Amino acid sequence: MNDVKAFVFDVFGTLVDWRSGVARDAAHFLQGQGRGAHEADAFADAWRGLYQPAMEKIRKGERPFVKLDVLHRENLEQVLPVFGIDTRRVPAPELDELNLAWHRLDPWPDTVEGLTRLKSRYIIAPLSNGNIRLMIDMAKHGGLPWDAILGAEVAQAYKPMPDAYLRTAQVLALAPDSVCMVAAHNSDLAAAQKCGLRTAFIARPHEHGPAQTIDLKPEGKWDWVATDLADLAKQFGV
Amino acid sequence: MNDVKAFVFDVFGTLVDWRSGVARDAAHFLQGQGRGAHEADAFADAWRGLYQPAMEKIRKGERPFVKLDVLHRENLEQVLPVFGIDTRRVPAPELDELNLAWHRLDPWPDTVEGLTRLKSRYIIAPLSNGNIRLMIDMAKHGGLPWDAILGAEVAQAYKPMPDAYLRTAQVLALAPDSVCMVAAHNSDLAAAQKCGLRTAFIARPHEHGPAQTIDLKPEGKWDWVATDLADLAKQFGV
Repeated sequence: MNDVKAFVFDVFGTLVDWRSGVARDAAHFLQGQGRGAHEADAFADAWRGLYQPAMEKIRKGERPFVKLDVLHRENLEQVLPVFGIDTRRVPAPELDELNLAWHRLDPWPDTVEGLTRLKSRYIIAPLSNGNIRLMIDMAKHGGLPWDAILGAEVAQAYKPMPDAYLRTAQVLALAPDSVCMVAAHNSDLAAAQKCGLRTAFIARPHEHGPAQTIDLKPEGKWDWVATDLADLAKQFGV
Repeated sequence: MNDVKAFVFDVFGTLVDWRSGVARDAAHFLQGQGRGAHEADAFADAWRGLYQPAMEKIRKGERPFVKLDVLHRENLEQVLPVFGIDTRRVPAPELDELNLAWHRLDPWPDTVEGLTRLKSRYIIAPLSNGNIRLMIDMAKHGGLPWDAILGAEVAQAYKPMPDAYLRTAQVLALAPDSVCMVAAHNSDLAAAQKCGLRTAFIARPHEHGPAQTIDLKPEGKWDWVATDLADLAKQFGV
């Protein structure tokens, strides 16, 4: 426990509520397009649904690394027709603006307190697939007190590629087992653990809305399991 | 003025007093080696004197990019014999520890207030040749409230190479002329200006001690000249 020097965090779902945040902005957009705001949750889910496939091309080496803002923007153009919207009829600046929904997601209620407490004794940084500018804007929006912005863009590799975890530890000049990965996703922790990082699980049972079926509980031998970030801080005595 | 969205800062000399900080740790080290603490300022100057030549090999492509902590550590081994110390007789952990002197430099008296005020309306980040972990430790030591840690390690290029400035603007998703480089060094600002960044000069007449002869005043057509960081914040109405 005392060997941990830094906590690195998954962000979408673990620290911020992406579904409500994206739906909020999507509702406004859909109404402007003459569509019903009631489709906003489905819109957020569909947009997020293209997230993993888009990164997968880069993980497989079929495409050079591009930052997540670029992938989100491309995915947005794909998702519009599903909701009966002709992409070519929407002015590009309006799509650029909607794409920034990911930059202004709200933190879960315990996030800022938990990060602030952990920061008092440890290095804290995101290890997200989100790019640096996205993470900066989100931190300014929600008051996330990062020591540094790490993650896919600094590592030039998307999780769960080993380089995403290993290069982050390298940048921190720490052995992997001095770095603790915090996530609400068992798959993220499994990948981090394979790279030698310590792991902490926090359930976020409403990340995917009321009918969530995955990641409701820890499904691996994680080093720590906490009810929320404040509980994790408490377990580390801060 | 209102087009500036982000301020990026030179750090060694502009925001922190490297000479006093390194000399403080060097004095302790020199005494442990049976040398006089009065040599500490000269030791700091000699160590810093190897900084530019070490980076120059990387800028010229004669050596792949390595982070500044590595160069500082190599330079330390070179500087010891100049002060009559046999490098091989000093335990490596002691040199590793002394190398961290660069991680715990104190900010100038106006630095934290100025950064905090600028952060209220703008993105603020270091654009230093110092590596990420060095900047994290320094920020935690001195209370520098960065939004993100940018600079040579993220850009994989040492200032004044154009890539150091241009890739930083790219990561920020900003046009170069929406980014203002703040430095106490005319040469740094000249390189930033060539890349299209805006420029702000702050004189730090004691960076090199009482006998400083360079960078006492602005020597280019910089966009802003301020007496200190609080004055710069004031000029931007924050």
